[in-house]
Amino acid sequence: MTQVDTNDGRSSGNPDAVREALAEFAGIVGANHVRGSDDALSRSSTPYPKRIGGVVYPGTPEEVAEVVRAAGRRGVSLWPCSRGRNWGYGSATPASDDSIVLHLERLDKILEVNEKLAYAVMEPGVTYRQLSEYLAKHHPNLWMDCTDGTPGGSVVGNALDRGLGTTHYADHFGTLCGLEVVLASGDVVRTGGGPPDCKTWNTHKWGVGPYVEGLFSQSGLGVVVKAGIWLIPKPESFVSFTFDLANEQDLPRLVEIIRELQLRQIVTSAVHLINDVVSLAVVAQYPAELVGRTSRLPESVLDEMRARYGVARWSFGGGLMGSSSSVRFARAELRRTLRGLGRLTFLDEFALRGVELLLKWRRRPWLASLIDGGVKAVFGKSPEMLHAAPEVHGVLRGIPSDYFVRHAYFKARIPKPESAHPDRDNIGLTWFAPIAPMTAEHVMEVLEICRPRFERFGFDFYVALLVQNPRSMIVLTCILFEKEDAEETSRAQALYDELGSATTAAGYQQYRTATAGMHKLANSAPQFVSLVRSIRESLDPGHVIAPGKYGA
Amino acid sequence: MTQVDTNDGRSSGNPDAVREALAEFAGIVGANHVRGSDDALSRSSTPYPKRIGGVVYPGTPEEVAEVVRAAGRRGVSLWPCSRGRNWGYGSATPASDDSIVLHLERLDKILEVNEKLAYAVMEPGVTYRQLSEYLAKHHPNLWMDCTDGTPGGSVVGNALDRGLGTTHYADHFGTLCGLEVVLASGDVVRTGGGPPDCKTWNTHKWGVGPYVEGLFSQSGLGVVVKAGIWLIPKPESFVSFTFDLANEQDLPRLVEIIRELQLRQIVTSAVHLINDVVSLAVVAQYPAELVGRTSRLPESVLDEMRARYGVARWSFGGGLMGSSSSVRFARAELRRTLRGLGRLTFLDEFALRGVELLLKWRRRPWLASLIDGGVKAVFGKSPEMLHAAPEVHGVLRGIPSDYFVRHAYFKARIPKPESAHPDRDNIGLTWFAPIAPMTAEHVMEVLEICRPRFERFGFDFYVALLVQNPRSMIVLTCILFEKEDAEETSRAQALYDELGSATTAAGYQQYRTATAGMHKLANSAPQFVSLVRSIRESLDPGHVIAPGKYGA
Repeated sequence: MTQVDTNDGRSSGNPDAVREALAEFAGIVGANHVRGSDDALSRSSTPYPKRIGGVVYPGTPEEVAEVVRAAGRRGVSLWPCSRGRNWGYGSATPASDDSIVLHLERLDKILEVNEKLAYAVMEPGVTYRQLSEYLAKHHPNLWMDCTDGTPGGSVVGNALDRGLGTTHYADHFGTLCGLEVVLASGDVVRTGGGPPDCKTWNTHKWGVGPYVEGLFSQSGLGVVVKAGIWLIPKPESFVSFTFDLANEQDLPRLVEIIRELQLRQIVTSAVHLINDVVSLAVVAQYPAELVGRTSRLPESVLDEMRARYGVARWSFGGGLMGSSSSVRFARAELRRTLRGLGRLTFLDEFALRGVELLLKWRRRPWLASLIDGGVKAVFGKSPEMLHAAPEVHGVLRGIPSDYFVRHAYFKARIPKPESAHPDRDNIGLTWFAPIAPMTAEHVMEVLEICRPRFERFGFDFYVALLVQNPRSMIVLTCILFEKEDAEETSRAQALYDELGSATTAAGYQQYRTATAGMHKLANSAPQFVSLVRSIRESLDPGHVIAPGKYGA
Repeated sequence: MTQVDTNDGRSSGNPDAVREALAEFAGIVGANHVRGSDDALSRSSTPYPKRIGGVVYPGTPEEVAEVVRAAGRRGVSLWPCSRGRNWGYGSATPASDDSIVLHLERLDKILEVNEKLAYAVMEPGVTYRQLSEYLAKHHPNLWMDCTDGTPGGSVVGNALDRGLGTTHYADHFGTLCGLEVVLASGDVVRTGGGPPDCKTWNTHKWGVGPYVEGLFSQSGLGVVVKAGIWLIPKPESFVSFTFDLANEQDLPRLVEIIRELQLRQIVTSAVHLINDVVSLAVVAQYPAELVGRTSRLPESVLDEMRARYGVARWSFGGGLMGSSSSVRFARAELRRTLRGLGRLTFLDEFALRGVELLLKWRRRPWLASLIDGGVKAVFGKSPEMLHAAPEVHGVLRGIPSDYFVRHAYFKARIPKPESAHPDRDNIGLTWFAPIAPMTAEHVMEVLEICRPRFERFGFDFYVALLVQNPRSMIVLTCILFEKEDAEETSRAQALYDELGSATTAAGYQQYRTATAGMHKLANSAPQFVSLVRSIRESLDPGHVIAPGKYGA
């Protein structure tokens, strides 16, 4: 098997070749769709500065193929991105200097929606917001899944990165079916092995012959220009729930309970179990006097904030969808299983209207304090938490919202904006996302690897436990740091590296990595990366598409 | 991209090289684990005679790697098979003459069973019967899925061929997680991209970096020597059901109903909707006077047999697993949805004991006619159908049984044996299995392509509609023919070819093909096959492993 060095730290092309390639690209896509090195794009919330050679914005799949062919001829590398919103994982930043970003935001067509079979075919530039609004308008009987990330993110891009949503369709790569891919040769191939206009392209995931779609997820083996995504038939009934764990020492038991609820198909939505810092990061902000002065809240401040906002040390939410009777059954099972462990709250459409009414009345000053007092007395929650309820309910049924991205501004010097955009606002955040078998033992082991290191490096321990499937839980941590503070940034980078080494040494892999950490895969899984590099050599010997992506 | 001819019709190696390779293999695996051309193995129920160069039976994954390396050095090709029970799809027959069958039946270790996380890791020689008995003895709290094929088939082999079972874990490739693969180079790689002893190897299907497991399904890109398979936590309650459709014209409506039941997660098991010929092939046999005289029963005989056995033109069965209340809810939904369309019968453990008691009493001659009369009067079923009930119930909860393979002997000159083995008994059968989007329109279109061709070529129309996923239905047809009759065999082959051309022309792909039909993929999906061949060239430039498999 051929061994190829990663391009990490190397340049992807000489400046002349890049300049000439951009000129040729302008001839293909139009001069107004090509840009030189782009400051906004090379700005990423992860501490991983790379020089971007330029940006090209093709408008059609055919233009993508032409650009790829031209790049191959000229020996320059392309770094495809769908919308560039991969915040905290590297955004649009390439793995090697001087790559040209192949930006697909202009490929924003929803090509087909099949109501009976509940799927949509779209281009990679289609955003969550766009799909959500399109379905609401034209196909109200179809629901979708979304992440709690930005509504401006790409549906296809997130699925190819194997992102996670909130419903029983949360495994976004799992609901991807049927890709059209531009290979490094410029050839276009449809996955699935079907005949022309294959009827099951978007309904039969595995196709016939080897299943190859996986090759184009978390990889640079091709540029996906069309993809099928499975949608959810609107359920008869939908109820969301939240649960506040009373005692932290019950966390291991809770992990076991969640696994059983999932394995036994009682709760099939992707439960998100979050710690206090996650909740507070969304609804609150650092006390003004601490902003810029610390990168980790003192325990006493955290205690005080938990009490003020009514935030539990651990809480989780999820959605129940189905017929009225199946939802009723699942509610009863949840109540039975979680009895005595904490506070379980259900929110159905009726209760939601109640909350919305309270929030409306609250706008009148003379009612606000009365309502706030009542909510605090009955639910133990602050007004901010009341505001969060409809947002949580919405995202759990697949309505994207800007609301949760506000977490990025927890330590920021600016208040949380309406439309959160950490790259624009120069916010520092890096996800570190190992995955563990969903047993108390494994999940606690990963937590106990990460928690003391966050403490030692002086960062708030932000962690969400996400059900990836009934057997696996993502331990999603986030390092929030001040990018303008060089010391803090380098400390964040050191923590990130240390977390990677420590979890890897203990036998845990990441479910997805930031671009900055991809090259390490070659060390931890040499045979695997060698296999992928062999495939890369056959499909893309010139390293045209995304060199260095996931180590290949 | 390199273009490579299929090896179809070609020879895989010269006789001297094959002989010398077998001698070297004997040094690796022991002389008693190597055989020359094997008559039993080259006998296949499909009309596809190929010369087998020999058979090698390695005993460990390390021996597999050594054999593969030796084959590469000597320029001979290997055709891996797990148990050789791929009946009706080509059994162990290679795609090209003189390949050496790499038989993995001695790799029969169950390496790990994880009760909490509900998975097992095993070698490819482990059979359904072996796993079923092992779980019953050591892990009674874990159930498995199986096909209605032979209990002697390989669990891993079936999953790699993307076979279909009967429960909500029916998508066998979908429940495969974590492979160890010997590549053509002899290198061994674990999928998933994890560090050594990765904790999520068998719980996180996609791993990190490109998902490559799909490359080793329906392909010859490597030899899988270990695999993880997800198991089912024993449910609190299990009920099986069967449904007889009253009027054939309601079939399209039934397809729509089944899709909705699946999409809405009311019935999540893989429903098998079968026609009269399928039912009769299992419980009955051709009238003696017609055996050897016709390859298609006259309509009047079929009418008479349906009446005698109490077989509907269309019927389906499925299982409901879960808590008592979720099963009760699903029963009610099924009753509501199917009301007025036919007869719905549930079989729980209590009713099952009743049936078993009836079958026991029936052994006394003076009771038999009384019971038979009662069963016919109440259920409209013959004693043979009563016998089938516990078998159906068992297979729907994942207990493998020889019972259903008896269908192969429908037209045979010998009575149905206890232990069915169509290859041994020289039975002719070929599966032809296109897949359609699960709408009435698509499924009926495929049926109307196939049905008249079976009639025109003079074969009984054997068809089962299998839910592959909530959006796709396999239209599984079977051509039953007499292998000793050359004219009938060549007519069966002609029908097989014609079905392939006609469905492909209409835009339908197959979910899995017989070895005899694999080379056609290169014509119907040239870009796709070209992609796979590029990958093959990088991993296996010497065409060591399974040349010609699925066109690559």
